[in-house]
Amino acid sequence: MPFLNYSIVVHNFNAGPSILPKEVFEQASQAILDYNGTGLSILEIGHRTPLFQEVVDEAISTTKELMKLDSDHEVLFLHGGASTQFFQIPMNLLNEQETAAYLDGGVWGKKAIKEAKLYGKVEVVASSKDKNYTYIPKGYAIPADAAYFHYTTNNTIEGTQMHAIPETNVPLVADMSSDILSTVMDFNRFGLIYAGAQKNIGAAGVNMVVVRKDMLGRVTRPLPTMMDYREHIAAGSLLNTPPVFAIYVCMLTLRWLKQLGGVAAIEAINNRKAGLLYDTLDKLPIFRPTVAKEDRSKMNVVFVMDDEALEKEFLAECKANGMVGVKGHRSVGGFRISLYNALPLESVRVLTELMNEFALKKA
Amino acid sequence: MPFLNYSIVVHNFNAGPSILPKEVFEQASQAILDYNGTGLSILEIGHRTPLFQEVVDEAISTTKELMKLDSDHEVLFLHGGASTQFFQIPMNLLNEQETAAYLDGGVWGKKAIKEAKLYGKVEVVASSKDKNYTYIPKGYAIPADAAYFHYTTNNTIEGTQMHAIPETNVPLVADMSSDILSTVMDFNRFGLIYAGAQKNIGAAGVNMVVVRKDMLGRVTRPLPTMMDYREHIAAGSLLNTPPVFAIYVCMLTLRWLKQLGGVAAIEAINNRKAGLLYDTLDKLPIFRPTVAKEDRSKMNVVFVMDDEALEKEFLAECKANGMVGVKGHRSVGGFRISLYNALPLESVRVLTELMNEFALKKA
Ligand SMILES: Cc1ncc(COP(=O)(O)O)c(C=O)c1O
Ligand SMILES: Cc1ncc(COP(=O)(O)O)c(C=O)c1O
Ligand SMILES: [Mg+2]
Ligand SMILES: [Mg+2]
Ligand SMILES: [Mg+2]
Ligand SMILES: [Mg+2]
Repeated sequence: MPFLNYSIVVHNFNAGPSILPKEVFEQASQAILDYNGTGLSILEIGHRTPLFQEVVDEAISTTKELMKLDSDHEVLFLHGGASTQFFQIPMNLLNEQETAAYLDGGVWGKKAIKEAKLYGKVEVVASSKDKNYTYIPKGYAIPADAAYFHYTTNNTIEGTQMHAIPETNVPLVADMSSDILSTVMDFNRFGLIYAGAQKNIGAAGVNMVVVRKDMLGRVTRPLPTMMDYREHIAAGSLLNTPPVFAIYVCMLTLRWLKQLGGVAAIEAINNRKAGLLYDTLDKLPIFRPTVAKEDRSKMNVVFVMDDEALEKEFLAECKANGMVGVKGHRSVGGFRISLYNALPLESVRVLTELMNEFALKKA
Repeated sequence: MPFLNYSIVVHNFNAGPSILPKEVFEQASQAILDYNGTGLSILEIGHRTPLFQEVVDEAISTTKELMKLDSDHEVLFLHGGASTQFFQIPMNLLNEQETAAYLDGGVWGKKAIKEAKLYGKVEVVASSKDKNYTYIPKGYAIPADAAYFHYTTNNTIEGTQMHAIPETNVPLVADMSSDILSTVMDFNRFGLIYAGAQKNIGAAGVNMVVVRKDMLGRVTRPLPTMMDYREHIAAGSLLNTPPVFAIYVCMLTLRWLKQLGGVAAIEAINNRKAGLLYDTLDKLPIFRPTVAKEDRSKMNVVFVMDDEALEKEFLAECKANGMVGVKGHRSVGGFRISLYNALPLESVRVLTELMNEFALKKA
């Protein structure tokens, strides 16, 4: 049992909520007993105190630094999950007579399309539904007069990822829930970026929204106060009682990433993790990745085995070796291995060793 | 310094986020390192696993038990703060041509009124704004054809509380953010109850919503999926990734309340805490409660001193004696002492002793 050589007991490949850095767990646990020596739990401090203001300030400034954002962009930490943004975005950005362009690249993008239709016209510029979303659509045209173009950078369920930012003059709106801050990109090219925190940046219960200010104030419909990005900007993410603890965990995770060397540093590690896993999958005939090679996700690696009995057996092996979260999404089947920022390379080594062993045993 | 006789170092009178039971802090802290011996943090477990299903199930069933809810009522744990409900309620319950009746009893009720106007007609049946919301309006009529009647059971900022449920056939909708589960009442009489968790039931970042099923499905407007109560009911509060940790803390706090003996038991303790504090305020001429006697809140006790220099001095004394969160809301001034469920009687004893001492010194 080679995994006994490793220091980690559980290997958490969950798709989200998912593994966070060990230091973050330790600091968050401590802060619940006594936040920074105040004698108070982080759960019982007022959100309008200097104690919490520091947390929000650091979460925002670290995000700006990691993303190298220019001064046109604002960073918000908002209530809700990424699904909340599916409707909050068109509510804020799309007038009824206008058209928003959407890419239908996976289950999550499809859900975003559904909500946008409540607020204006939606043009789906391309879809990969024909092949079960196993590739990223290419060669489509984005109407020049679209209010924005929405796409999902990483399709968490299907395991595809867009490796380049589309070239267009239409404002880009991106759901980066499952690959935010995992790879170097020009974040300033986006009109709006959003991500549920529970994969790469923190705990469930908060959204990160990065918005270019000129995107706002264009819609004519009246907005509920809590849904209006401008209200949250004016209040510095403290419009009402924010999800205090979830923001605190984001701050710790962002700080960890910064101390590690930022996005370029984590990208190098992520490349090694994904490289090792895909190389193993390609080498071993028993495992079959489901996704077009050039569109493979570095965050969620999806594969199947052609024999269902073998799949069950391998799943049991994973479990016996302390691995959790390896089962594929019910809509795809097989396996999904999530390799988010906080997942140690070690966990991928343990998994690939198990794969090699298993393939040998079955050869 | 009499406070040295007490075991608590900090006395947390915060208005929210606010003190939670010590056991809850300890259990939550431990769960972040290792949730129930799984080797996983509560922050990294999947929300669709049996591990978390248990948490949601217990949170919901304990709420039903504590509130003695009948089978017509559903319990939801939703993203956002109580301010999110200010618009989500009329969005779900009020057609454009219909009228909702609102009581204008304080700052929070006023904000709820503003959001409701986006969705239909609003009739403000009474207001205590004329006297800075220092009393609860009485003797008003609720139009019989109103879609619902909305009021705030406890006005957190102003320190007033409604001690009886209004008699009406119109469905009752109540913001119980700051006194939920603090006093025995017939929760089944409400069409909808909501409360931000961060006072009596848990940590910031989640709302409890209790809704009678026949309230739903009446509005004709299309609802965004994430805003539709029916969707959340159908999904058992797991429509998307919920605020996992905030729900966990709710579950622990609800469990604590149940083990303590439920709402009747905590009401007895709350009565002692509020009784001791109001008796002291009434006895000492130097402190002046601002609220009409019959409308006094047992959760937020508001008072002033007639001399600003003395207020500063007393505030400093409180601070020196380990008390936090005693300063009044900026809109009222003076002092606000929050006595939520988890605040120990001991803390009120320490405070009232300090008051007695201070009054003696200044006599
Ligand atoms: C790419 C993507 N978008 C949206 C969502 C939905 O996020 P939430 O559950 O926070 O609403 C997910 C969830 O996994 C996701 O992976
Ligand atoms: C009675 C009441 N309603 C609503 C709110 C607003 O709650 P939130 O900050 O969770 O939006 C508060 C906040 O203190 C409150 O006391
Ligand atoms: Mg998708
Ligand atoms: Mg292979
Ligand atoms: Mg109020
Ligand atoms: Mg007095």
